[in-house]
Amino acid sequence: MRKLTRTLVGAALAVTASASFADEGMWQPHQLPQLADTLKARGLEIAPEKLSSLTEFPMNAVISLGGCTASFVSPKGLVVTNHHCAYGSIQFNSTPEQNYLEDGFLAKSFDKELPAAPGSRVFVTESVTNVTDKVLGAVTDKMNGEQRYQAIEAKRKALVAECEQSAGYRCDVPSFHHGLEYFLIKKMEIRDVRLVHAPAMSVGKYGGDIDNWMWPRHTGDYSFYRAYVGPDGKPADFSKDNVPYEPKSFLKVSAKGVEEGDLVMVAGYPGRTNRYRTADEVQNQFEWAYPKGRIMREALIDLIKETAAEGSDARIKYESTLASLANYAKNFKSMVESYHHSDFLQRKQQLESDLNAWIKADSQRQKEYGQAVKALGELVDQSQSTQARDLIFYYMYYAQAPQMAKKLYRLAHEKQKPDADREPGYQERDMTRFKESLARMDRRYSPDVDKAILSFLLMEYAELPKELRVPSIDTFFGITSKVKASVLNAHLDNLYEKTRIGDAKTRERWMEADVATLDEVKDPFIKFARATYNDRMRLEKADKALTGEFQQWRPQYMAALIAYAKSKGQPIYADANSTLRVSHGQVKGNSPKDGLVNLPFTKLEGIVGKDTGEEPFNAPAKQLELIKQKQYGDYLLPSLGSVPVNFLSTVDTTGGNSGSPTINARAELVGLLFDGVYESIIGDWDFNKDLNRSIHVDTRYMLWVMKHVDGADNLLEEMEIVE
Amino acid sequence: MRKLTRTLVGAALAVTASASFADEGMWQPHQLPQLADTLKARGLEIAPEKLSSLTEFPMNAVISLGGCTASFVSPKGLVVTNHHCAYGSIQFNSTPEQNYLEDGFLAKSFDKELPAAPGSRVFVTESVTNVTDKVLGAVTDKMNGEQRYQAIEAKRKALVAECEQSAGYRCDVPSFHHGLEYFLIKKMEIRDVRLVHAPAMSVGKYGGDIDNWMWPRHTGDYSFYRAYVGPDGKPADFSKDNVPYEPKSFLKVSAKGVEEGDLVMVAGYPGRTNRYRTADEVQNQFEWAYPKGRIMREALIDLIKETAAEGSDARIKYESTLASLANYAKNFKSMVESYHHSDFLQRKQQLESDLNAWIKADSQRQKEYGQAVKALGELVDQSQSTQARDLIFYYMYYAQAPQMAKKLYRLAHEKQKPDADREPGYQERDMTRFKESLARMDRRYSPDVDKAILSFLLMEYAELPKELRVPSIDTFFGITSKVKASVLNAHLDNLYEKTRIGDAKTRERWMEADVATLDEVKDPFIKFARATYNDRMRLEKADKALTGEFQQWRPQYMAALIAYAKSKGQPIYADANSTLRVSHGQVKGNSPKDGLVNLPFTKLEGIVGKDTGEEPFNAPAKQLELIKQKQYGDYLLPSLGSVPVNFLSTVDTTGGNSGSPTINARAELVGLLFDGVYESIIGDWDFNKDLNRSIHVDTRYMLWVMKHVDGADNLLEEMEIVE
Repeated sequence: MRKLTRTLVGAALAVTASASFADEGMWQPHQLPQLADTLKARGLEIAPEKLSSLTEFPMNAVISLGGCTASFVSPKGLVVTNHHCAYGSIQFNSTPEQNYLEDGFLAKSFDKELPAAPGSRVFVTESVTNVTDKVLGAVTDKMNGEQRYQAIEAKRKALVAECEQSAGYRCDVPSFHHGLEYFLIKKMEIRDVRLVHAPAMSVGKYGGDIDNWMWPRHTGDYSFYRAYVGPDGKPADFSKDNVPYEPKSFLKVSAKGVEEGDLVMVAGYPGRTNRYRTADEVQNQFEWAYPKGRIMREALIDLIKETAAEGSDARIKYESTLASLANYAKNFKSMVESYHHSDFLQRKQQLESDLNAWIKADSQRQKEYGQAVKALGELVDQSQSTQARDLIFYYMYYAQAPQMAKKLYRLAHEKQKPDADREPGYQERDMTRFKESLARMDRRYSPDVDKAILSFLLMEYAELPKELRVPSIDTFFGITSKVKASVLNAHLDNLYEKTRIGDAKTRERWMEADVATLDEVKDPFIKFARATYNDRMRLEKADKALTGEFQQWRPQYMAALIAYAKSKGQPIYADANSTLRVSHGQVKGNSPKDGLVNLPFTKLEGIVGKDTGEEPFNAPAKQLELIKQKQYGDYLLPSLGSVPVNFLSTVDTTGGNSGSPTINARAELVGLLFDGVYESIIGDWDFNKDLNRSIHVDTRYMLWVMKHVDGADNLLEEMEIVE
Repeated sequence: MRKLTRTLVGAALAVTASASFADEGMWQPHQLPQLADTLKARGLEIAPEKLSSLTEFPMNAVISLGGCTASFVSPKGLVVTNHHCAYGSIQFNSTPEQNYLEDGFLAKSFDKELPAAPGSRVFVTESVTNVTDKVLGAVTDKMNGEQRYQAIEAKRKALVAECEQSAGYRCDVPSFHHGLEYFLIKKMEIRDVRLVHAPAMSVGKYGGDIDNWMWPRHTGDYSFYRAYVGPDGKPADFSKDNVPYEPKSFLKVSAKGVEEGDLVMVAGYPGRTNRYRTADEVQNQFEWAYPKGRIMREALIDLIKETAAEGSDARIKYESTLASLANYAKNFKSMVESYHHSDFLQRKQQLESDLNAWIKADSQRQKEYGQAVKALGELVDQSQSTQARDLIFYYMYYAQAPQMAKKLYRLAHEKQKPDADREPGYQERDMTRFKESLARMDRRYSPDVDKAILSFLLMEYAELPKELRVPSIDTFFGITSKVKASVLNAHLDNLYEKTRIGDAKTRERWMEADVATLDEVKDPFIKFARATYNDRMRLEKADKALTGEFQQWRPQYMAALIAYAKSKGQPIYADANSTLRVSHGQVKGNSPKDGLVNLPFTKLEGIVGKDTGEEPFNAPAKQLELIKQKQYGDYLLPSLGSVPVNFLSTVDTTGGNSGSPTINARAELVGLLFDGVYESIIGDWDFNKDLNRSIHVDTRYMLWVMKHVDGADNLLEEMEIVE
């Protein structure tokens, strides 16, 4: 059965995309030749096949920063990405005296470039190999969930370990179509990344959180890094002796840009979409999980703001946590609104009922897929039965003291195993980043805030039915369904007073300790980690078993969906999974609501129109003056009568695409993807061609600011700028 | 000099409006024939002269409700206006058991119609007579400010008294061009007004305060009254024997409506504009008065909300006060934003400098106008010197206990004078409304809230420099610059505990009392009114003297402006002054900000898009269902593919225009003006043809709801509906 379904996938993927699906899809590069007709009809000037080769221009100029996307824009390893992707590195190098975040930063020569924040990476994808047979070859139909999970993980780890024999490489074996296919992805990992240029925050983050996910937009969301390697051309830790990395190719930067209706493509690493979930999962997500998640986030935001007074050191440490909490609270809100204003659920239900009818109509299909649909439904029910607890545990991540203790204690346990058998995140290959995460805590942790968060979450936890609670947690914190906050807080006061987890040197020592040593440590949070360890392992095992069950049935369900789509001549792209994808579309506005139209471009004058002089609408005085004088330089878009700042496109993108190069029909850089409109946030689940719009910073604006405001002539000369 | 300038006005007004001024202007009806070219070019089908006759169709169908505008739409005195203009009457008739506000109201026959709220009036303008010579004939150049003020007031009062000899009429002598011209306006005053029909609040106030001044808009802002008169056809108090008033004409209602680009005209009673203020006045208003006013309003809102808990009886009493405070806080905010984003001040300054150069260039002009420009500037300075106190006293209006006491005490004093000599508002003609205002207090007053407001304002007052403070107020409340809130509040607690001003019967008794009687009353707020009476009269006299000075120089300044405009071939319309005006323009969207376009129409589907099920986005279920079924009936606008709900036009309107009939080229009713967009709020000062847009409810939407949602067939039959 397995083989059959895999054959089906290949066939379905080979169907040429129909016009009605023109803008939807985050395609694997190897699928692009199948879209040749659409792309050519829309004006593509390069051969579509060129887009499918990872080792050729332009795809080999597209790189991952891990979470964000970027691209090479010079032969000397110059990298352009979003300002918000380089934000941490700009912040890392800023001091109250020399505030690069506020004033911007420009290295006038290579030796003035600054180390990026610890952990910054440039990943260059070098190969993508289908390893489905290898991974699923380790699996038999008789395995139970846990066995299946372990077998797949063991195989993936083995493949990764083998691949990472090459020094300086990171490898992954992501699954496509939720376990139907597996690919081994090999990426060069450049560890010496330096900050080259960032505009002032009042350009790069213009509009701030207020404008986040909004249109009209006027954000100069770009910054420059440079990738460095050792003198031997191989990845190396930071060193003065390192030399700029020379990429095999780089993107030329267009000063001519795009017009309304032009083809644009975005190549990047979209993180995660859920376009193939069941109706039941969709309903639960939008009617339970997102509304609940929003409430949790807003409660945490209020809590942090109350505990860490504005302007305090503690508040500064939590600014990025607050931003991320708020970001997704708004995200969830938008999704729930969109859901209730759309027929998404009805369409899902219709699709499922059509699918079921199609399966039922044929005994062979019945045999192949009938069981999967039913089994998946039961697994979904099962996973929902513990979701109230799972949600609270998810947000426990924000209580850093217990979280860090659990991580350290787990590491000691994992280190007892051979490297290959360890849990992902605890292998030797993870240790650099593990160490960096220990260091990062200093910049993001305040005991008072942490305590308030933990207290809030434990009180939420106390309201769970007893059968969902965890005995060792109840015992450790003295939790009952009637626990009083005052009693709990007195207990937590004591824990936070005694713990040394906030001390960086202590954490480093514990990172090196073995289980026996940690078992002797009297620190209350290490004690907590120890006391709850067995329960946590038990829950994790159950989780894995469930995942293993999903790994059995969701691929079959996907196979059914793909076969059904194929029967209707529709191609299928895989859900996003942080691997390199290409989306395409057109520069195009839309009508986000009745009576209102979003134009495809914003222009310089809109900045003056928005400006209040107060953050986040406080453009540099020089910039405002240049705009008033209509100093457009070479970057005028005549049909707009000004320099375009941001533009909208129909391109299908999601988080992880941030910083992605937006290229025109000749694969020249015309913009950087940096956001979507509010109505397209639900795009992670449901693509609506009328409402879904990506937002790009226009290269003409980037070049205009670099030349006229920031005087970044050295970079303008280094890049190849084309008309 | 006076005569000369008046001659000049006439000449300037006769210049035909140039195309560039096409949309700006609230024209006096007699000026409309001068706009004939523009109106005809835009498609006017009736003779422009018809619009200038107040006693002919269509102008005699346009009526005032005092604060709002309305129009007759049947031969039986059926009146249509905005839902928000009839709001008080709907509320007045609502009870928790029979909530017409929430559910809507429809009288299926005449005898089911309900009395409108006390004080409701229909005013039918019958004549407008130029009385400039009579009013200014009473004035000599040698008079000082106070004498001038008194002379003008005496003459106006005399003219009013003479005019009101006819029973059932109200007369006014408003000034035009700030004292350059005076007209006697005679209006029939219909006192028996009844509520006929209002849609549910979820239609009539859809979008509520959130959508106020916003586009896209989906508000069904219409309601119906009926005017009743005595069996003799003359205005009469409410009586079962009264009969429907039969107006000389009424507007036909268009079911065909308008398209984008069509000519629309709005006839109504715009309240007040300030299009001819000096640059200095503009700067002070937008950089001091509006920002300060907004702060005061927001502080009062917070205060009321804190003092009157949500859902409490007190809060219900203050809902309309809160709405009005919030409304203008938003209004002021918009104006200040627009001001800072525009070149309004620079244009004003430029105009003034051009005007001064033009005056200087000619010795005759120098002689005529030179003094006025200088003198007006000095008067403006003088009025600004006390504005910090004036602002606080203005907001004292919200402290009803002392305010009511002052009014009652003042009435006793005024009654000592012959009726003609009394202050406006205290004459016999005002007594019905005076009494109504006493009664209204019961529905809007809570001692706790009132005390909090008074305390806040007195603490603000205490911060004024001593020379601006008023000795008797300081003494009465024990105010010094160092007064503590706790001490003041203890004092106020005592006053509010003892006062009987909150008792309706007591107020009525005091309304009848003479000075000697009130001087014996021990009530603390009557004592306050008495203690501060002389100081208040002194300040009022100074105010009047200043007004008299303005009455001398502002008309001369206007004469200079008019003469200068005439020299450039530009016509001048007078600032709005609550008299009947006609504006014209086109159905047209705009771009309110870079990257965004407002379409001219919204449609039914937009209601579904906005609907959350929660107020103010909670359209009736029946309506939502009809929309989902695309039950458009006869009201489809094909180019829109749906029934239009609201539309935008370039028509120049302001507060007071609410409820105004919007008529097409054949003078058929195509909509009701009910709001402007956020960016046009500054229109009271500065008309911007790109940003200024009026918002109208489309008659097609009104008819659609009446027919399909509310089943108001009796009214649909009564009106003359045309294709």
